[in-house]
Amino acid sequence: MDYIQLQKKFRRGPAIVLPKDIAIIIANTNLDKSSIVIDAGSGSGFLTCFLARFVKKVYSYDNRKEFLEISKSNAASLGLKNITFKLGDVHESIKEKNLDLITLDLKEPEKSIEHCYQALKQNGYLTAYLPHISQVQNLVKNKRNFQLIKVLESIERPWIVDEVRLRPENMILGHTGFVVILKKI
Amino acid sequence: MDYIQLQKKFRRGPAIVLPKDIAIIIANTNLDKSSIVIDAGSGSGFLTCFLARFVKKVYSYDNRKEFLEISKSNAASLGLKNITFKLGDVHESIKEKNLDLITLDLKEPEKSIEHCYQALKQNGYLTAYLPHISQVQNLVKNKRNFQLIKVLESIERPWIVDEVRLRPENMILGHTGFVVILKKI
Amino acid sequence: MDYIQLQKKFRRGPAIVLPKDIAIIIANTNLDKSSIVIDAGSGSGFLTCFLARFVKKVYSYDNRKEFLEISKSNAASLGLKNITFKLGDVHESIKEKNLDLITLDLKEPEKSIEHCYQALKQNGYLTAYLPHISQVQNLVKNKRNFQLIKVLESIERPWIVDEVRLRPENMILGHTGFVVILKKI
Amino acid sequence: MDYIQLQKKFRRGPAIVLPKDIAIIIANTNLDKSSIVIDAGSGSGFLTCFLARFVKKVYSYDNRKEFLEISKSNAASLGLKNITFKLGDVHESIKEKNLDLITLDLKEPEKSIEHCYQALKQNGYLTAYLPHISQVQNLVKNKRNFQLIKVLESIERPWIVDEVRLRPENMILGHTGFVVILKKI
Repeated sequence: MDYIQLQKKFRRGPAIVLPKDIAIIIANTNLDKSSIVIDAGSGSGFLTCFLARFVKKVYSYDNRKEFLEISKSNAASLGLKNITFKLGDVHESIKEKNLDLITLDLKEPEKSIEHCYQALKQNGYLTAYLPHISQVQNLVKNKRNFQLIKVLESIERPWIVDEVRLRPENMILGHTGFVVILKKI
Repeated sequence: MDYIQLQKKFRRGPAIVLPKDIAIIIANTNLDKSSIVIDAGSGSGFLTCFLARFVKKVYSYDNRKEFLEISKSNAASLGLKNITFKLGDVHESIKEKNLDLITLDLKEPEKSIEHCYQALKQNGYLTAYLPHISQVQNLVKNKRNFQLIKVLESIERPWIVDEVRLRPENMILGHTGFVVILKKI
Repeated sequence: MDYIQLQKKFRRGPAIVLPKDIAIIIANTNLDKSSIVIDAGSGSGFLTCFLARFVKKVYSYDNRKEFLEISKSNAASLGLKNITFKLGDVHESIKEKNLDLITLDLKEPEKSIEHCYQALKQNGYLTAYLPHISQVQNLVKNKRNFQLIKVLESIERPWIVDEVRLRPENMILGHTGFVVILKKI
Repeated sequence: MDYIQLQKKFRRGPAIVLPKDIAIIIANTNLDKSSIVIDAGSGSGFLTCFLARFVKKVYSYDNRKEFLEISKSNAASLGLKNITFKLGDVHESIKEKNLDLITLDLKEPEKSIEHCYQALKQNGYLTAYLPHISQVQNLVKNKRNFQLIKVLESIERPWIVDEVRLRPENMILGHTGFVVILKKI
């Protein structure tokens, strides 16, 4: 399965979480092949599918039916069978318990904070992906019993390396979003 | 298993590949739970162990016996059982075939380029982690049949977010290494 | 006069505005040798002295007598004669009119916004140097008749270049402050 | 004189040195209102004009007649009278002596290194603006009696700050050039 090629053909709905930001999540949340994860606000399913390649099970929530369909279709194109898609708001409808990780790509993740706390296992992680630092501030103010582990942004810089050129690319993505890492302790 | 806590107690030999750079590798190399990987120049085993959490099998090479021992001890502390440690230079002694990924943390990875090419499956990836951009240039010059996919550096910026502060940290790691992504096509 | 050497011997009070951030101010505020400038919250006088090398006249305000003394002593060490030091809050005591630029290094620059507006000439600039992005937000909210030109942060990356090394420095200043550029239109 | 507005109407030839990189030069080269400067490879004259606003005298070299005309026309539009334009290669034709600063925007600045050394005063500065790090390496290898002070790159990050948004811009200039600062000691 060539995920990288196939992802390029993904049907697109809302903005996706980019690999560089998914990488921050993977690097900081204690996952392994036995992990059970919720991805909420799954949009076109890019993060859902990425996580599903590495963990045991992903529950993928979105309250917008059209995006859930896109997400399902993208997962099918990669042959991923360990995803359950759920139509609904994560803060209204989580039934899963004892989760290792919940990833939120929502405008106001603080609304879901208590439901996420209940659904996570002890030492489980909650991450939020937020374009605005003011959103980060709101979430941190309302994190309740979670411990704030880190707030990170990642600037990825591609270089041009060939016979004559040895320099960074001129135009780059200077910002996508901030990643907040919270832990249930 | 709390990998993040346990990693902090890792015995240390040479400089490790940091999570932010491991994440670049994971985000760009088409891995999944069925992947078979070689990590060469495994040092204290940080990357070896990180990959072993997500893939099926890791072969971990180092030609320095003392580091291989450190690496083994670190893997044991995480309870990882899908790693085979091998004493030796990767460019002399690879016997494995049909690999999905080879990760090199070596001073002159171009010396191993042909052996890696032989060991990888079609569409498999080779990554090199290199502190100096001149090393990157040398590798790209000598990449032979590999396709150069990307040369990336990642700058991770932690933010301080609390009741009164909302700013990036003052002193940061501004550079660790460049990651070269090559593909066997 | 070797400013760069002499600056290293400056007496220090509060944190200084660094050359990279002073440079942002100079690059974005339409100064020349005929400009008349106020620097307020001048601290140890680093920015005051830097500007005085290039413009006609600098008025340097601080409401802390001990810092104003440090600032005077530093200016004297550079032989700068076009600075008038004034003890006082800029938002209480500006008498100057028709200024080209006012630079604020104050915790709450929005308190001085109206006085600065009165003191500037048409098309004059106001800059504020602020460590926290929340301070930037407060200033922009209270900018009144000023036009917001830019909010910038500058990350300066030193490289190590010698016979064997060709890489960025590992530890860098990842953050000093945000520079807000306002214009009276 | 509104330099910033007028610069936007500059006639353009080759790529200009951007304000953020001009700022590095100003911040690191000990200039003041009495300085005498050569700018070589002046292109459309952006750096020449910027420096002329702050120093006593600028000699502006270019060996391409059409660019020298553009440069002259741009300087005239700003009313700058302290610039002398000279057609020619800086490494063939410098007659000026005792200079405070020479700024080079040339492909192979090392060719001019000895002529620049002769033309500078003791403790004078030479800067080079170079897109490729391999060019930087060549220059540093051939710096002769110059002392290498710094190699810098500056990443300028504009923020969007308004009623609802508080985030860096998405697409930014991630690279323009490296600035090498050399000193005659």
